[in-house]
Amino acid sequence: MKVGFIGLGNMGMGMARNLLKAGHSVTAYNRTRSRTEELQQDGATTADSPAGVAPCEVVITMLADDHAVEQVVFGSKESGGVLSALRSGSIHISMSTISVELSDRLAEAHGSGGTSYVAAPVFGRPAAAEAGQLAIIAAGDDEAIKQCQPLFDVMGRRTFNAGEKPSNANLLKLIGNFMLASVIETLGEAFALGRKGGLDAASLLEVLTETIFPAPVYKNYGGMIVRQEFEPAGFKMPLGLKDVRLALAAAESLKVPLPIASLVRDQFITGLAQGWEDKDWAAVSMVSAKAAGL
Amino acid sequence: MKVGFIGLGNMGMGMARNLLKAGHSVTAYNRTRSRTEELQQDGATTADSPAGVAPCEVVITMLADDHAVEQVVFGSKESGGVLSALRSGSIHISMSTISVELSDRLAEAHGSGGTSYVAAPVFGRPAAAEAGQLAIIAAGDDEAIKQCQPLFDVMGRRTFNAGEKPSNANLLKLIGNFMLASVIETLGEAFALGRKGGLDAASLLEVLTETIFPAPVYKNYGGMIVRQEFEPAGFKMPLGLKDVRLALAAAESLKVPLPIASLVRDQFITGLAQGWEDKDWAAVSMVSAKAAGL
Amino acid sequence: MKVGFIGLGNMGMGMARNLLKAGHSVTAYNRTRSRTEELQQDGATTADSPAGVAPCEVVITMLADDHAVEQVVFGSKESGGVLSALRSGSIHISMSTISVELSDRLAEAHGSGGTSYVAAPVFGRPAAAEAGQLAIIAAGDDEAIKQCQPLFDVMGRRTFNAGEKPSNANLLKLIGNFMLASVIETLGEAFALGRKGGLDAASLLEVLTETIFPAPVYKNYGGMIVRQEFEPAGFKMPLGLKDVRLALAAAESLKVPLPIASLVRDQFITGLAQGWEDKDWAAVSMVSAKAAGL
Amino acid sequence: MKVGFIGLGNMGMGMARNLLKAGHSVTAYNRTRSRTEELQQDGATTADSPAGVAPCEVVITMLADDHAVEQVVFGSKESGGVLSALRSGSIHISMSTISVELSDRLAEAHGSGGTSYVAAPVFGRPAAAEAGQLAIIAAGDDEAIKQCQPLFDVMGRRTFNAGEKPSNANLLKLIGNFMLASVIETLGEAFALGRKGGLDAASLLEVLTETIFPAPVYKNYGGMIVRQEFEPAGFKMPLGLKDVRLALAAAESLKVPLPIASLVRDQFITGLAQGWEDKDWAAVSMVSAKAAGL
Repeated sequence: MKVGFIGLGNMGMGMARNLLKAGHSVTAYNRTRSRTEELQQDGATTADSPAGVAPCEVVITMLADDHAVEQVVFGSKESGGVLSALRSGSIHISMSTISVELSDRLAEAHGSGGTSYVAAPVFGRPAAAEAGQLAIIAAGDDEAIKQCQPLFDVMGRRTFNAGEKPSNANLLKLIGNFMLASVIETLGEAFALGRKGGLDAASLLEVLTETIFPAPVYKNYGGMIVRQEFEPAGFKMPLGLKDVRLALAAAESLKVPLPIASLVRDQFITGLAQGWEDKDWAAVSMVSAKAAGL
Repeated sequence: MKVGFIGLGNMGMGMARNLLKAGHSVTAYNRTRSRTEELQQDGATTADSPAGVAPCEVVITMLADDHAVEQVVFGSKESGGVLSALRSGSIHISMSTISVELSDRLAEAHGSGGTSYVAAPVFGRPAAAEAGQLAIIAAGDDEAIKQCQPLFDVMGRRTFNAGEKPSNANLLKLIGNFMLASVIETLGEAFALGRKGGLDAASLLEVLTETIFPAPVYKNYGGMIVRQEFEPAGFKMPLGLKDVRLALAAAESLKVPLPIASLVRDQFITGLAQGWEDKDWAAVSMVSAKAAGL
Repeated sequence: MKVGFIGLGNMGMGMARNLLKAGHSVTAYNRTRSRTEELQQDGATTADSPAGVAPCEVVITMLADDHAVEQVVFGSKESGGVLSALRSGSIHISMSTISVELSDRLAEAHGSGGTSYVAAPVFGRPAAAEAGQLAIIAAGDDEAIKQCQPLFDVMGRRTFNAGEKPSNANLLKLIGNFMLASVIETLGEAFALGRKGGLDAASLLEVLTETIFPAPVYKNYGGMIVRQEFEPAGFKMPLGLKDVRLALAAAESLKVPLPIASLVRDQFITGLAQGWEDKDWAAVSMVSAKAAGL
Repeated sequence: MKVGFIGLGNMGMGMARNLLKAGHSVTAYNRTRSRTEELQQDGATTADSPAGVAPCEVVITMLADDHAVEQVVFGSKESGGVLSALRSGSIHISMSTISVELSDRLAEAHGSGGTSYVAAPVFGRPAAAEAGQLAIIAAGDDEAIKQCQPLFDVMGRRTFNAGEKPSNANLLKLIGNFMLASVIETLGEAFALGRKGGLDAASLLEVLTETIFPAPVYKNYGGMIVRQEFEPAGFKMPLGLKDVRLALAAAESLKVPLPIASLVRDQFITGLAQGWEDKDWAAVSMVSAKAAGL
């Protein structure tokens, strides 16, 4: 398939490479040009602007946030966006973690333009992206999702269908990230209590993960907390705050209070006020530790 | 070994039976006598008072709360407790979920009386107790724990050593239950958001538990929330509130704020104010659902 | 002075009338035209568009929210805004409760256009607006504020100077409204507890306001809670939520956690989820009452 | 009247002196004897034990907490309490801030002993106690309160009747203190935001207290926060935590969630974990300041 790929960050690079390896033709655009050149060596074609990838049948966006997606899709003062350049019948797959509200706007914009829109955010860290082992949550028109399936199969280990409304996939992704944030905050409080009560942190983690919480997320984040090692960051604290904020915004517009998310948001803000913007979001556990006088 | 067993509730009955099956001699006491008689058929001897089990080398208590343990150990107005009746050199294993503060008092009382005290609370539901598959968290004098190991091996699938200070085991158990309560509350908020956003609840749970949360606790509690089925209760809401309260009390005396536990406590109280005292603690998710207007 | 006045809502109408009474010349614009016609009878001139008030020396905006101010100042698709029509040397006084972020953008836009910008949000209800008894918080260029003082003197009982940075006045206003929201939420919890404990609500309020809380805000909101009378609304719940949201947004960009504001936000959302959008924001107390099973 | 007075702390000393000045006969007991001797110079008689004041018609207790009241009333291992020594027909006025639960127990104990029990906690600081300007919240048997009125008139500026159930007065007092704690926490967050946003703290306080919050409590606590002056403490942080804890306990047994109280409790614990136990409870505002990176 002819695939346009916009956004060669930590996640996007691995995903695009897997598409190339599987024999797809990839035309890539990235704001920082050096990343595109890197991918050229794997066989990609380079585009000079977002609109430059528009001739492809499918365009994938994998960008940092709403703002980046908006600029690429709708265009900015300086340059046109990919939306107006797309040919009728082509599909835009938005794989970034974006707001429900933007996803709804994208769906509307595509609907009125004769192009299709599939929201397909992913669960997984850069290593999973590289290994083609992402979990993909796809939502949108069934026919369009079916056409994208060969691409999903290359990038992920499994695709979940979240229904016909594209933003449902984004909502589901945000729910997942909110729940991860809750796990991290809970671990932070638990270890502050355990450490202050004289428990050995490593043993505490062992007991927890070999009894009631035998899941990688508890092992990984718990391990970071036990080792007090939050750099280099796998997922930086400002990104954590952003995702919690997006979950809260989606919840507010649906009139759903999320007290745990509100609390976690305050903890992230507290962490950022201490200057921890380059640390992994698991460093929010240090907010609990400091509050406990540790 | 000659074992005294006090407390034949949902958990205790299965544990005592496993001791009998393994060939240990069990003398049992339970406030409601019919339970003791049931165990007689499996070969147990019946005691008429807590003190009646005192001639045994090891006495296990598996009771509902601090108050029950205090009455049994220190005695009440009506009858003497087991503590004063124990022979020097015998061991009291406290397997109930009790407060750190009571566990500390028990350690002190035993220390001055020539008897040993091992705190050994467990993770696991009644089915695991029956199957001898509990996870046991033991803390206390190493030598005493070693003597108890054959009993632990019969009741549990694995024993974790939480150190020399008995109440450390209780603290660890309370941390675990606090973390479970946090998972339930988080699931409640997540499903309120998902449902109000139009996600299919069963699909949401499938995605979550097959991607980032592949742990039984998410599957079980999530399943209850998806089915909105909170009776019969595996663990009633007032018990959930009690454990969170004990975690908060331990944390307060160690000067550790636990904002998530405070929040969950408020949600349980809200649930009880709606008259849900006979529902499983997972029914706290209905507090989130109602708050969202569902 | 020649004053343009945009926004004749519950607050703006009284303010504009007071300007007319004091002999100022007022050219008014309101989206709903009937309101402008009402003011014509008091001697105002009518403008057909926001830009129509631009010939005045001073233009006051008193509108519902950021969106309304943006449309009026920067213009919409349909019509030009007032900003580009203003003559050099004229002053825009923004008296609406708007975000710190928009106020900063307005300051920047005016700064580059040769016009002045004064932020002057107010404390006070419609009755105070009508009586010329508002408290005005003004911030901006000292010289510009001095020029506006005669107008402030007519609309308010006192003007406070919040410094040279216009958005400081908006921040101060948002802080005040956040604190009001906290008072209401606290009263809601207090009365839920008092009522469930068997206290007479009216007596409770009497004791509180005649001892430690002798302030009108406690008397007024407490009285509404005692009478359970939340309609007609003086200030509707969605507006309360909006202001708390703006306080949280300002705080987030300054990296300040506001846990009380987060909590109050969740309570307002819960109230809106029950369908209470037409009730006074003091109806958030009913969230506490329902949570307590009242 | 012959009055027994137990507890000559910062509050009790002034109250007892006012009784003496008004011509009442006072027999006083205090754990630290030097305080009693001080009062002897004003004409008081000294008792050597709590029971030593029992011959009086009325016995007032004004002590630090539940534990102190329990020891004095019910006696300890070392000495008898005042309850069993009281003559039939005499009245115990409990003016300390104690739990609803202990107040209920006291009512029951007196009821079965032929003596009367009036709960009469107070609002006011030591200076008000000295000046006879306390606000007294009395609850209990009407006849008994009537008999106490001459004493209340000497100690306070006004007496409020909170009904026939004595513990209602304690509940009301705890509600008041919870609301004060909420004001302090809210001020702490507000000033953290204001300061970080560049507002002058003193001006912020002036605007707030001259517009929407013209109450001494906002001026006093706000002033402490503006000056960052929390020592010497008028009311120490551990006492603040204690009162919030009592409010939460009363609320829990009545099944009333108090999310603001839960939040404030966490903030006090955080403050104590930083070693601020000798600071005024208004120092909890420093928790907000530190969280904001100030």
